[in-house]
Amino acid sequence: MSFDSSSVLVVGTVAFDSIKTPFGSRERIVGGAGTYIGWSASQMGVSAGLVSVIGDDFPAAEVDAMKEAGMMFDGVEKKAGERSFFWSGSYHMDMNGRDTLETELNVLAAFEPVIPQDWKGAKWLMLGNIDPKLQMSVLDQLDNRPEIVVLDTMNFWMDIAMEPLKAVIARVDVLTINDEEARQLSGERSLVKAARCILGMGPRYLIIKKGEHGAMLFHADGGELEYFYCPALPLEDVVDPTGAGDTFAGGVIGHLAAQRKTDFSTMKEAVVMGSALASFTCEAFGTEGIRSVSKAALNARVEAFRKMTVWNESRVERPVTV
Amino acid sequence: MSFDSSSVLVVGTVAFDSIKTPFGSRERIVGGAGTYIGWSASQMGVSAGLVSVIGDDFPAAEVDAMKEAGMMFDGVEKKAGERSFFWSGSYHMDMNGRDTLETELNVLAAFEPVIPQDWKGAKWLMLGNIDPKLQMSVLDQLDNRPEIVVLDTMNFWMDIAMEPLKAVIARVDVLTINDEEARQLSGERSLVKAARCILGMGPRYLIIKKGEHGAMLFHADGGELEYFYCPALPLEDVVDPTGAGDTFAGGVIGHLAAQRKTDFSTMKEAVVMGSALASFTCEAFGTEGIRSVSKAALNARVEAFRKMTVWNESRVERPVTV
Repeated sequence: MSFDSSSVLVVGTVAFDSIKTPFGSRERIVGGAGTYIGWSASQMGVSAGLVSVIGDDFPAAEVDAMKEAGMMFDGVEKKAGERSFFWSGSYHMDMNGRDTLETELNVLAAFEPVIPQDWKGAKWLMLGNIDPKLQMSVLDQLDNRPEIVVLDTMNFWMDIAMEPLKAVIARVDVLTINDEEARQLSGERSLVKAARCILGMGPRYLIIKKGEHGAMLFHADGGELEYFYCPALPLEDVVDPTGAGDTFAGGVIGHLAAQRKTDFSTMKEAVVMGSALASFTCEAFGTEGIRSVSKAALNARVEAFRKMTVWNESRVERPVTV
Repeated sequence: MSFDSSSVLVVGTVAFDSIKTPFGSRERIVGGAGTYIGWSASQMGVSAGLVSVIGDDFPAAEVDAMKEAGMMFDGVEKKAGERSFFWSGSYHMDMNGRDTLETELNVLAAFEPVIPQDWKGAKWLMLGNIDPKLQMSVLDQLDNRPEIVVLDTMNFWMDIAMEPLKAVIARVDVLTINDEEARQLSGERSLVKAARCILGMGPRYLIIKKGEHGAMLFHADGGELEYFYCPALPLEDVVDPTGAGDTFAGGVIGHLAAQRKTDFSTMKEAVVMGSALASFTCEAFGTEGIRSVSKAALNARVEAFRKMTVWNESRVERPVTV
């Protein structure tokens, strides 16, 4: 496998998580933003070049499985004698909140992303949630401006590194954050006003992730704000939401890369694909849900998304009016 | 004007509210569930027969304006020397929560709804949020089972009158509650499981109201759970959400009455209409937003709802597959 014009360049952690939810717990399972993004983009039929760092505790069998699925590890530094990044967290009963119990930076403490020479012409770049300075360093190493750059971040970086973060935001096409982060970043309570403000900072698209309430895509086309609302599929059980946001982002960039388009219509589809893929992640612990998605299962879920928002099918030629 | 086969029978308070939101405050403005439901149903082009109670402090000019819009007051008892129901509340900065500052039952303390003889054949019944025993009394006074009965209620009644509430729920077609109430009523965290449980209690339809996150319609058709997600229109400013849920319910029953249908497809349209009307209520204090909606403005908003969820327009004949 080699990095080609539809390959996605992914920057993000490849790591271990210990997770406790009302459905049970798992100790030191494979996780990390880069891992989820990679698995998800792979489901869109494109290969993913990972830029990350692991310790020698990361299982070789897992690396093999990820390579088998379409991920490339040339950009993953392996530090002998060191341990991989580790996070542990516990979800609240209502699954809408979680507490971080422990974070061990380990190999991440001194991480300096290095883009392999062959990957510097990447057309599809996904900057996973990581220190904005490292995200900026990746942008600076590229030979050309990619077709699209998607940036994921979180309130943690807004709290401690707002200026470096804003500098990266100014250089990307798509920003994915949650509703509270959109409010924090913009200082606006109204999501419409927040979106207008954030789109003024640089990105062409803003995706506001609302967890069980879905995701909103905003786009400023010639001054007029356009938007698209993608609900979350209601699930029988949300077993473990860890990685759902990363899976979503991986599906978004994976779909764009597979389609080789970045227009608003393709972005809407990408948001639906990302949401569908994220629903698989939520249904099981760790990467268990996302690593085994069949095309039939994914297509059925995309159809469920379509069906749950269509309300005037029989009136296509005669719009509902009062 | 007379009560006819498309008239909606509305039970609910006609009252005063004092409201404080981050956008300002209003003292003793006209409010109440019955008022909002009546205004909203009227916007769907049907008349509404109100069953309620007011004191002699309720302004005659307001009654005239409501009659002018299509509301009938034959079922509204006016108690001389008494004061109308009064509620005052203050919204949190994020508008997702509010504190009740004061509640004066006044005329509501001894309210016994009496359905005018001419209205007992009502085909469209909206039981606004009120003591379940009074809601039951209204059902018992009717000559026939209406085409549809919509019931609105809240956690307050679940806390203090769960059994009488469940007895009413068993006799209605549509229940409208919010997500936390659906969880409380069913004991289930998952909304899918909650919906299945609640639909087993009697109603054909369950509408879960999620405020700024929209509304979900659930329907059990031959055992299989069907659902529809209607997002909330993102607004520049939510000035005052008081009455949004009642406006929504009024739009739902108003649309069903106007269409004279209760199938799933018409219910979906009704949820969109209710959401569109509720968005007008949120944009101004009290009934100011809902009382002056033009057909053009409403149609534009319904089109905005359609547009914000359509994502594969260009692929109608070739569904998106991966």
